[in-house]
Formats: sequence, C-alpha cells, structure tokens
Amino acid sequence: VEGLGLGPGREFDLIRGFFERTGVAASPQVRVGPGDDCAVVVGDGIALSCDLSVEGVHFRREWLTEREIGYRAAAAALSDLAAVAARPIGVLVALAVPETDAGEPITRVMEGVSAAATRVGAAVLGGDLTRSPAPLVLDLTVVGETAAPVLRSGARPGDSLWVTGELGGAAAAVAAWLAGVEPEPEARRRFAAPEPRTREARWLAEHGLPHALIDLSDGLAGDAAHIAAASRVAVVVAGDAVPIHPALRRLASTPEEALRLALGGGEDYELCFTAGAGQVEARVAAFHREFGLRLTRVGYVEPGEGVFLEHGSLGRQPLRVAGFQHFGGSR
Amino acid sequence: VEGLGLGPGREFDLIRGFFERTGVAASPQVRVGPGDDCAVVVGDGIALSCDLSVEGVHFRREWLTEREIGYRAAAAALSDLAAVAARPIGVLVALAVPETDAGEPITRVMEGVSAAATRVGAAVLGGDLTRSPAPLVLDLTVVGETAAPVLRSGARPGDSLWVTGELGGAAAAVAAWLAGVEPEPEARRRFAAPEPRTREARWLAEHGLPHALIDLSDGLAGDAAHIAAASRVAVVVAGDAVPIHPALRRLASTPEEALRLALGGGEDYELCFTAGAGQVEARVAAFHREFGLRLTRVGYVEPGEGVFLEHGSLGRQPLRVAGFQHFGGSR
Repeated sequence: VEGLGLGPGREFDLIRGFFERTGVAASPQVRVGPGDDCAVVVGDGIALSCDLSVEGVHFRREWLTEREIGYRAAAAALSDLAAVAARPIGVLVALAVPETDAGEPITRVMEGVSAAATRVGAAVLGGDLTRSPAPLVLDLTVVGETAAPVLRSGARPGDSLWVTGELGGAAAAVAAWLAGVEPEPEARRRFAAPEPRTREARWLAEHGLPHALIDLSDGLAGDAAHIAAASRVAVVVAGDAVPIHPALRRLASTPEEALRLALGGGEDYELCFTAGAGQVEARVAAFHREFGLRLTRVGYVEPGEGVFLEHGSLGRQPLRVAGFQHFGGSR
Repeated sequence: VEGLGLGPGREFDLIRGFFERTGVAASPQVRVGPGDDCAVVVGDGIALSCDLSVEGVHFRREWLTEREIGYRAAAAALSDLAAVAARPIGVLVALAVPETDAGEPITRVMEGVSAAATRVGAAVLGGDLTRSPAPLVLDLTVVGETAAPVLRSGARPGDSLWVTGELGGAAAAVAAWLAGVEPEPEARRRFAAPEPRTREARWLAEHGLPHALIDLSDGLAGDAAHIAAASRVAVVVAGDAVPIHPALRRLASTPEEALRLALGGGEDYELCFTAGAGQVEARVAAFHREFGLRLTRVGYVEPGEGVFLEHGSLGRQPLRVAGFQHFGGSR
C-alpha cells in the first residue's frame, strides 16, 4: 500500500536525528518522554492548547529563516499557557512538510521550536512528521500545569484593564514587509521571536492580581472582545493610554494609524488582564524590576457588553474588531 | 495588518456553531473545556499524542466523505491512547482548511471527529482553525489518563507476540481503490472508520498481561520493529499465524500477496503486544466474549535485534519493513 500511512523510514531517522542533536530535557513532570506512542506528564491541572502556523497565512518564507519559523510557531503557542497563568511543561510538534524541506530545513525548524520551548522551561515531548503536497504547516500543542487557571471570564464591572509591554511591534514589521521594505530590527524581532509571557503571568497570578487574563494574539480590540464576551461585561479602552511600540510610532504616518495598528495588529503576545481598581498600581515598579517590562493601565470594565474606545475629541465609540478574518470578506 | 493573525470573525462563529450543535461533553476530568486559551484536565498521569492527517497523503477526497475524514483522523489519533493503555479524556482539533471547505464541509469534518471521540468517551476540548492555501490538514491531539502506561520497551525474550482482530482490511480497501474499483463494504469500513482499541487495551492491562504494547498503524512488520528496537530484543513473526482479514484474502491474488499486505499495509489500528509465554491463552475466550474480537498469537520474542518472518518452506528471514516512507525513495 504505497502512498498511505506513516512510514517507518526516513521520517523516523529525521526525528531521531533531531532528538540526538538537541537532547531531551529531563523534568520530574515528564514521566514518559518522546519515542513511545504517547508522552505521559503528571501535575495538578494540566493545561492544553494547540496553535497552527501555516505558510502563506501566518508567515511568509521570505520574512523568516527556518529556525525563526519554528521559534515563532512555538512561542505563539506557548503564549496560550501564559494566558491562563500555567507553568510550561512541554510541547508536541506536528509538522506537515513539503518534500523540498526534508532533511536540514525541517531540522532547523525543529531547532527553533526547541529553543522557544527551552527558553520557558518546556521540553519537546513528541510529535508527528509527515510529508505534505503543499505548504509547511506546523501545529504546536502546548502542555502546562496550573492548579488555578486564570480564565477570560473573571472580569467584573469596576475592574481596570492592563497590558504588559508595548503593542504593535509585530504589526510594524508586517506593515514594513508589505510595503516592500525591511523592518527595523526591533520590530522584526517582535514578529520573528515573540516572548511568551509565562513567567510574567505566573507572577501576576501569584500576587493575586488578575480577575480575567488573555494573551494578545488577535490584537487588543479582538482580545478585549473575548474578555467582554466571556465575562458578560463591557470593556472600555482609553486610546491615549495604549502603549504603542516605538517602531510602530516611527513607521506610522499618523498617530491614528499607529493606534489602529496597535489595537488591531495582533501577534504581540503580550498579556491583557483585568484587576480590581487600584490593586495593580503598587506592583508596577516591582514587575518592571523583575521583568524589565511595563505594566500599563489601558482602560476599565463596566456593566454591559462589547468593547468601546475612548479617544480624544471623538469621545466614546464602539471599537470595531479590525483583525484579519480567515474566511471573512477582507481578502 | 490584513493577511496575518488569527481573526476574531467567522472562524470563531464556525467553532461556536459546532459546539452549539454537538454540545460539549461534561467530564469530571475536564476542569476547563473549550472556549478559553487552554483546556485544563486533571488525572493521575496524562497521556498525550498528536497525529496528522493530510489530504493526498493519508486520505483522498474521492474515497471518504467529510464526516469520515474527521472520524478516521480522530480514531487513528485515539488509537495512540490505546497503545499505552490510557483511558481517553479528550481531543484537541487543529484544522488547516482550504477556502472551499469553510462552512458546512468543515462542520461535517468536526462532526466526524466528535463522533469518534464520543465513541471512546472523549470530549472535544478545543482546537484551532485556520484557512490554508492548500490541502486539508488535520492534527488531532489526544489526551488520556494512565497511572501505569504500557510502553513499547517492556518486551522480554521468551514472551509471546499477540495481535487483536484481523489485519489488512484497510489495506484491502486501499488496494481496491488504487485498482479503480470500489472496495467491499467491510474493507471500506476498516479504512474509513477504524476502531481505536482503548477499552480492549485497558482490559489487557487490568489483567496484567502486556509487557510491551503498540498499536498497528505502520503495519505489523514496522510496529514489531518498534517494539524490538525499544525493548532491545528480536521479534519473530510466524507467517502462518497472522490473522488475515477476509476481505484481503478475497482481494489478493495469492496467499503471499495477502500476507505481504497484512504485514506491511498498516492502518489497522489493532493492538500488538508481548506477554509472558502461556499467560494469555486462558484469557482469549473471555476477551472474545467481552469485545467480539479475536486474540491471536503471531510470534515470539528472542534475544537479539530486528524482526524476522518464519514462513513455510522459506524458513526464517529478516522481515523488511515495506511500509510507505514519507521522504523515501518509493514515490
């Protein structure tokens, strides 16, 4: 039966070669590592999420090295563990690979995956590898531990809305590439090597701060809408307060364009959370000392539904979700 | 930043529509179900595996309905839980979908996934959905519980080698399709709707029988090689003992061709295990009463390495792994 099935030949050699080269991280929570039919992990509340990266949809070859393709896919997936304040344990890596990428290219992709995992203390637990008639598809399943996950649904009227870091750096890189110019290095790095905020999220949770938590993958406008919907509240974003990445400020023609991209651009993988009014301010300096990262209050929570933008002379208006829609009309 | 990112629009409506239609299975082991950044499960030893199904590699559109594409992908993935004797908890479903499949077609794929999961007591825990420039790619991550996983590495010299069910039914279906004829219904069913042997594996483990366990995805030749390598033993397969599926007997031109396809065809998703000599025989009748399924002794384990076939007048010969090699020379 040629042409079907998972074969016992070179794909296994590739996987073996990869694990021999990078080693397999040892962890007391990994009872069975790669190489058997399943990995087995232990822990009190196992958090699980999967995240696809598709060539031509989530990245373009001409923008990223193969190592960066793997790093970025894994970092984006690991960010979902940060989004519930889970401690990373490991990743499973599924790769559908064009023939032309077999061998060294896909090994470099795996090295990127492994580097992103190692950076947050996660082990490569296993995966699957198959040829594909067309573009490179990665699916990263992330595995973490959290006895007390912080969900999207905990926001309460009266909460303040906070974000970590600065928004729109990845959007600035993409806007530059789409305009045919090379992005500045800091913007490029924000796109190619995002940093999953797993330690930051646990710090916030250990200090009892977040009522609702999410990571910024869709953009603040879209992700605040997820919090609003899950918590059955209205979220109000203060436009003047949004911390816009310096690279985006330099790139955008107007402050309004910068704000639009910062709100809608997505893929910053910063944290967004709500907390009781006045509860976070006293921790901002300690957070910055610990992580070298800003905490910025960008809005508040009200009774109601939906997301609103308060911005200068325009007053309050519904914040339309401007992110890319996979099957929507924006093609 | 059009063209990048996971959007907040119609993809979410599709997912919501699916979960509204099928409901979400409640389970005491699922602490957080679909809809947040991660699912959270609890249990004593969480078994994890992922399994890709790629259009044109693992299935062809003209062979399967959309519902069957989903069912088969999930059943094949769930079989990895059987392969360590884990009890299924749930699945994560990642789908990279051509534009033409958006809407009803991909909903039918999800219905198939859900049906396969429900059949073994697993819940759909979440997933990811993205458009794809080219063919349909499914990655199923399966999640189960096992305090005592049965691995590939436990085979000992002197063990007997056993399989459940009959081998080569799926291979008979594929051979028929490749020859341009419709397979007989029972063979087609073995390909389109394989049955992950999760209950059977747990029964065997609860009776303390398997030393080493694997599921037959690559074919007996390839999977016995995995046991041999992991256990550092030699495995000898008795050709005359291999239980060949009746549909394959009828289709093959010669008994040798039937045996070759039964050994190399793969995708039967039956169990293969080793157990102490004489330990299983007394349980065969009870197993059959419980599951309506044969248990057949098909060989034994020796000191050494590799896999051998003992077959009629040919005597013993190394059993070459004839399965499909993804990046091999057999294209």
